[in-house]
Amino acid sequence: MRATVMYEAGDVRIENVPDPKIIDPTDAIIRVTRACICGSDLWPYQQLERTDSGRLMGHEAIGVIEDVGAAVSKIKRGDFVIMPFAFSDGSCVFCHQGLQTACVHGGFFGNGDVAGAQAEAVRIPLADGTLFPLRVATDDALLGSLLTLSDVMGTGHHAAVMAKVATGKTAAVVGDGAVGLCGVIAARRMGADQIILLGRHADRIALAKEFGATDVVSERGGEAIERVRELTDGFGVHSVLECVGTDQATYTAISIARPGGAVGRVGVPQEEKIAGSEPAFFNNVTVGGGPAPVRAYIEELLPDVLEGKIQPGRVLDRTVGLDGVPDGYRAMNEREAIKVMVKP
Amino acid sequence: MRATVMYEAGDVRIENVPDPKIIDPTDAIIRVTRACICGSDLWPYQQLERTDSGRLMGHEAIGVIEDVGAAVSKIKRGDFVIMPFAFSDGSCVFCHQGLQTACVHGGFFGNGDVAGAQAEAVRIPLADGTLFPLRVATDDALLGSLLTLSDVMGTGHHAAVMAKVATGKTAAVVGDGAVGLCGVIAARRMGADQIILLGRHADRIALAKEFGATDVVSERGGEAIERVRELTDGFGVHSVLECVGTDQATYTAISIARPGGAVGRVGVPQEEKIAGSEPAFFNNVTVGGGPAPVRAYIEELLPDVLEGKIQPGRVLDRTVGLDGVPDGYRAMNEREAIKVMVKP
Repeated sequence: MRATVMYEAGDVRIENVPDPKIIDPTDAIIRVTRACICGSDLWPYQQLERTDSGRLMGHEAIGVIEDVGAAVSKIKRGDFVIMPFAFSDGSCVFCHQGLQTACVHGGFFGNGDVAGAQAEAVRIPLADGTLFPLRVATDDALLGSLLTLSDVMGTGHHAAVMAKVATGKTAAVVGDGAVGLCGVIAARRMGADQIILLGRHADRIALAKEFGATDVVSERGGEAIERVRELTDGFGVHSVLECVGTDQATYTAISIARPGGAVGRVGVPQEEKIAGSEPAFFNNVTVGGGPAPVRAYIEELLPDVLEGKIQPGRVLDRTVGLDGVPDGYRAMNEREAIKVMVKP
Repeated sequence: MRATVMYEAGDVRIENVPDPKIIDPTDAIIRVTRACICGSDLWPYQQLERTDSGRLMGHEAIGVIEDVGAAVSKIKRGDFVIMPFAFSDGSCVFCHQGLQTACVHGGFFGNGDVAGAQAEAVRIPLADGTLFPLRVATDDALLGSLLTLSDVMGTGHHAAVMAKVATGKTAAVVGDGAVGLCGVIAARRMGADQIILLGRHADRIALAKEFGATDVVSERGGEAIERVRELTDGFGVHSVLECVGTDQATYTAISIARPGGAVGRVGVPQEEKIAGSEPAFFNNVTVGGGPAPVRAYIEELLPDVLEGKIQPGRVLDRTVGLDGVPDGYRAMNEREAIKVMVKP
């Protein structure tokens, strides 16, 4: 089959690779209906060191079950499923508490160890725990939004949960990438009154406003902090969704939280330390977040997607075939596209 | 009157200074019954740069009201009161939510701006909001424990609250200073099953065990992390109380939290960044805490002190008069005393 292989920063190729096969009896194989390129794929796209074997990329997909191992009981051939970016057994102590990204037998797709989903098909470890079967009729117009439940919409929601967004509270979203935009959707959905987007790209800002952003701050650093305080009676916001992961974004996120507020960070951290120790401490700001247990959130978010109440699929502003994937990476890296959907 | 004045690192003197007077109509003056030296006083004791005017030290006290300003209505002459380390108006948005250390009109005692309590008397700004009057009979044996409600016991409790200690959970306390020991009391009081103390001083460890510590880890760094994991089925603890504030203590605290766990940090941070960004993120560990709103906690903790259910005053293992304060700083700095009580 054809799959996306990254050999080093900037070198993404579509190659013929062996078809995925059942290895463990708990595996399933899905034929990929839609996959996409993630903002987090841009870190290796910018930094990956040369690897001879290449890395099979992609961790977000929806698809149809083609084969299942002997021990798979909940998932059947022909099921249409959402594949969260992490696989999980669904039965360990962490899965039971809804933190599937800490599953004791789990792991991540497309990270160099387990093959990725920007391909015609992909092997799913621990299929019963990992996959969410969609046993409702859907139409093609919903595919994009369903696909976002495999990562970005669940991740934006996680940021909002960890930032303790609630009815009548004020929120800020740091970053106008696909996750930030889904964070706006999540903050609105959870009842925030005021939603301040910190971002600089006109097209994304426009979409954020449609999603529910009430204010936009395009300054950076100290000026951004000042502007958010001006918009919030000098106090800062109750809830900050940190959707970037850089030092500056984290420092800004912590600094715009009001005393007793919370930061939910979902941007993959690019530094060994969390910027903003002192503002976090002296304002009693809580900093939480991490890889989103999107598997846990599908049940909650799916009805809103099916009813069209939320339309996170709108962040997917370009669709390519597998041949278009290398250019899709380039387009996202150059901020020409927000997020690229792949139709293998 | 006589008061404690610090001129630079290591230079603590008892001097005659002007008696405190009512300045604002919301002020009160208390005659100090007991004060004490705080672990956080050791930071200036180690690092303060030379200041000609000197800093009037001390932020923990119990005492008797000697005078009140015209606008003070809840506090009366002769009241026996607890003086939290922060003053607060009791009426702003943050005071109403129980975060008096973020009071919009508040501040801190003994920090260079407002005079300190290691003295015969001290001026209390915003007396109605700040002071907690004790209108119950107490005996001298309780004075130490009552005094700890002005800071260390409330601070240990805050660490436990922010670390989400709950019945049947596992907890670890990083640091065996007075706050860490009070953290053990708080974790036990809030129902933790297993309480692991990370500390190295035999006398403190002995007291921690009496307070409810079930395990002790005296290793540091990676070895400490390994030991805590061994004690917790490899997962780490649900709740970590970080009671030191150094880089290493913070990194250790985050690294011994299990996935989805929480760190409550109350050690004043000594670095601009929080160590442990990656373990915090990848394990979805929440990091909260800051200056404890001890004013909010007195109501909850006081009955247990009055009934003798908790005895945080036992951390005060040495009592001195004002003349003994300079040596008290030395003794605490050299880990000869856990915490020094001052009887002016």
